[in-house]
Amino acid sequence: MPKLWNETIAAHRDAVREATLDATAALVAERGLTGVTMSEIAKHSGIGRATLYKYFPDIESILAAWHQRHVDEHLRRLAGISEQQAEPGRRLEAVLRAYAVLSRERREESELASHLHRADHAVRAHQHLHQFISALITAAAERGEVRGDVPAGELAAYCLHALGAATEARSNAALDRIVTVTLSGLRPA
Amino acid sequence: MPKLWNETIAAHRDAVREATLDATAALVAERGLTGVTMSEIAKHSGIGRATLYKYFPDIESILAAWHQRHVDEHLRRLAGISEQQAEPGRRLEAVLRAYAVLSRERREESELASHLHRADHAVRAHQHLHQFISALITAAAERGEVRGDVPAGELAAYCLHALGAATEARSNAALDRIVTVTLSGLRPA
Repeated sequence: MPKLWNETIAAHRDAVREATLDATAALVAERGLTGVTMSEIAKHSGIGRATLYKYFPDIESILAAWHQRHVDEHLRRLAGISEQQAEPGRRLEAVLRAYAVLSRERREESELASHLHRADHAVRAHQHLHQFISALITAAAERGEVRGDVPAGELAAYCLHALGAATEARSNAALDRIVTVTLSGLRPA
Repeated sequence: MPKLWNETIAAHRDAVREATLDATAALVAERGLTGVTMSEIAKHSGIGRATLYKYFPDIESILAAWHQRHVDEHLRRLAGISEQQAEPGRRLEAVLRAYAVLSRERREESELASHLHRADHAVRAHQHLHQFISALITAAAERGEVRGDVPAGELAAYCLHALGAATEARSNAALDRIVTVTLSGLRPA
């Protein structure tokens, strides 16, 4: 097959996947996790039921793919924010702040999140995030901006857990304070 | 009825409840959450099936009661540790350290915990714990040992989240470091 044809097929596949995930996200937002059926997803996405089943065997697999897309977007967003800052200490601070904001947004999707967070892709994404934050911490520690008496991996775990408190933040000011306190814990003794 | 008789009935009720919860805990530990039936609990606890159903309508209610007992024990343990220290800063540190150890132990019971943590009693216990830590923080802040620029309630949420990192601590030394870093975040700027 010519290359162009393969590309067309790939683009079509992507379009079907995206349409399915968009329709599922909209339906879950409207009716909750348990109120969605394969037929409704087919109807909402404009994809034939038979075609839908070729892409996804069941609701569970669609939700997993949707969550993976969502998590990937977050990781990309954090990577982008990191690149906007040249200085390691600023970089770490900007990423942790963005992560706190994402944690806070996540509050609303808690039913779905707790259902999906144990999935393999979510565990991998968490590991990826942990490595990403560890690397930022290592870079900042080399410049003396972050304490050197605790391994970077442990400090990264501390940050990710501490910033989970952002889910309870009732205002932007409260969210800022959580980030400030978490950063204080990272500072050299 | 004479008072003694009421006391005897109350003691008997407590004994039946305790025996049921102990048997359930042992069976869940052995077979997992989904491998336990009412008949087996009756058999293991030495309580007749009919009697068991008078106390608990279903497995779910037994698990909730068992979890509540477990959570209450933890809260009592933390309160006891608090009372052993006279000085507010030490008190806060000792309680946070004990909470980190409990968080780490909780790792093993994650299947059951995630199932039960949304239950009403667990939410109440979490609120109780949050208030308890907030009070310790307020007392330490009044003596200038904890930062005063962030409300005690927010600092308590920060502590409870940050110490969740203890679930990933691979050694006692790592657990100590998590506590140290979390306490650094509390220190006056």
